Amino acid sequence: MDPVPMTQINTRFTRHFGLSTPVALAPMALASGGALAAACARAGALGLVGGGYGDVAWTQREYKAACQSALTTDRIGCGFITWKMDEDARALDWVLGLPSDQRPKALMLSFGDPRPYARRIADAGVALICQIQRLEQAAAAIEAGASVLVAQGAEAGGHGMNALNGRSTLTFVPELADWLADHAPETLLLAAGGIADGRTLAAALMLGADGVLVGTRLWASQESLAPVGAQDLAMTTDGDGTARSPVFDILRRKHWPAPYDFRALRNPLHRTWEDRIDALRADPEAARADYDEGVRQGDFTRAHATAGEAVGLIHDRPSAGVLIARMTQEAVALLGNAHGTFGLDGP
Amino acid sequence: MDPVPMTQINTRFTRHFGLSTPVALAPMALASGGALAAACARAGALGLVGGGYGDVAWTQREYKAACQSALTTDRIGCGFITWKMDEDARALDWVLGLPSDQRPKALMLSFGDPRPYARRIADAGVALICQIQRLEQAAAAIEAGASVLVAQGAEAGGHGMNALNGRSTLTFVPELADWLADHAPETLLLAAGGIADGRTLAAALMLGADGVLVGTRLWASQESLAPVGAQDLAMTTDGDGTARSPVFDILRRKHWPAPYDFRALRNPLHRTWEDRIDALRADPEAARADYDEGVRQGDFTRAHATAGEAVGLIHDRPSAGVLIARMTQEAVALLGNAHGTFGLDGP
Repeated sequence: MDPVPMTQINTRFTRHFGLSTPVALAPMALASGGALAAACARAGALGLVGGGYGDVAWTQREYKAACQSALTTDRIGCGFITWKMDEDARALDWVLGLPSDQRPKALMLSFGDPRPYARRIADAGVALICQIQRLEQAAAAIEAGASVLVAQGAEAGGHGMNALNGRSTLTFVPELADWLADHAPETLLLAAGGIADGRTLAAALMLGADGVLVGTRLWASQESLAPVGAQDLAMTTDGDGTARSPVFDILRRKHWPAPYDFRALRNPLHRTWEDRIDALRADPEAARADYDEGVRQGDFTRAHATAGEAVGLIHDRPSAGVLIARMTQEAVALLGNAHGTFGLDGP
Repeated sequence: MDPVPMTQINTRFTRHFGLSTPVALAPMALASGGALAAACARAGALGLVGGGYGDVAWTQREYKAACQSALTTDRIGCGFITWKMDEDARALDWVLGLPSDQRPKALMLSFGDPRPYARRIADAGVALICQIQRLEQAAAAIEAGASVLVAQGAEAGGHGMNALNGRSTLTFVPELADWLADHAPETLLLAAGGIADGRTLAAALMLGADGVLVGTRLWASQESLAPVGAQDLAMTTDGDGTARSPVFDILRRKHWPAPYDFRALRNPLHRTWEDRIDALRADPEAARADYDEGVRQGDFTRAHATAGEAVGLIHDRPSAGVLIARMTQEAVALLGNAHGTFGLDGP
């Protein structure tokens, strides 16, 4: 067993999963591969491989790479898009069917009803993490036996709840913490959406989270499988420069169910269509050709770069281990010094 | 001079304005009247009267009431909607033209370009607070001489930036803190949007804010001028139950410039129109009649109840003094105990 790094921030989440910092890698489809998940695990965080749309070959390759590189499955897990599992759950079944010492320590489901998968995940002895976007989804996740709920705010990159229905991390986390205290007090709570440094990590802990799920900050790292051109563009984009819309799902021929949409850098192709969604849906082919050409050329004025609002806190692309150490140390300093910083002994 | 209550949380903001807690009342139009602003000031916070659309008689009455009830102007200020001042600034001119010992300690402007008002506010010796919704608005606020910037996230109730352009408090505050450190390090920073209890106050301080601006939580209080029926409905609505859209601005015949819109409880009349904005704009009269009848009857299935996502953290309607003491004490406990709570000495 890989030795657990010395615990730096101690919460119910770190104790449950044997972590040294209350951080989990978001299982970002096509970005959170084996190398990134393993780097997070080695740094004492929970590394979730991004099984995403359920591509079996991709999941097998990257999950095996994660376990091999981390030297253990102790802090390795995997995540899937729930509504895609409803169509084809072979990748999920493969990972749950591994010999018990090779199975993930946690399985994360997001974007759909987790209850049809509850039995097979429980039978495999794997902890279920359910990501939700609205308070009204909490009860089904608890019914599915979730050990961990992730409260995902709309500031997150990639898929999430659309503008009318989305919640923000700042209000959703404490409200869900209250709900869990009343309904399922043993269930752990992670904050997702906007967490990218020690300040946002410390804030999430103050809100009542047991830890955080980090996407965009680790998407821009040495081990990320995201295109380097997209990461480079993100480093020079501030937080005003992302938007949530269905534009890229339409261009990518992804048939996401309402009310989910997608946050990415608001590039020129996005701006062309963001106010004309109905027109784009009605006649998408010319725009799709433009998008496809952008992808082929690595031209992110047309291709999508999946990043959340936290992109404005991202200015470099170090290794995941450096990033996790940095955000942990910054949070430790903020939380540890708060008593003095704010003169809590009085004037 | 009213004695300042004993300082409980000490920041640059409390020191600058002689406060005992780093909290300001949001100058909510028609809710933040004299009684509420004075109650906040007496509790050691900054009480900003909601001058809103610039109604001179309302502003005169409520501002005078605030000063009379607070026994001093020391922690009393006033706020206006900037683009309405562009049409008629008589209320602003009245408050700045008071004898110097009766002038507000701070003048807050939001939703527009503050620069045309910079000179007269500076000449009156009044501190300028500028609320912004995007990072790109920061430079103009600094140019206008703002002593304080308020970073307003889209989770806020009432007016704010629309879905495509809005920022969330969690990412906007630390990003603006970084920007101010580079460009205007003496300028103070408040977080607005989603701040309603000690957890969210403590989180805002971890994000790098010097304090917070509180709207919805104080909108639901004994001293608030908001309709009691609206407050009662808010107390039983969770945070999933608000939405940001132009619906109520259209129904109320408010001609707000893009890209601002309005967050309120997502009541049946809102739901009827939220997906058909173009149709509502094209032919609003029947819906307006329905809305007007709702207002007349105090029927908040049709009339608007202005609340942000933090409504899910609100379950009672005590006095503002009780609310401010409660959130301050909760934040003190969270921040003061963080070292032990999170085992920061290691395992």
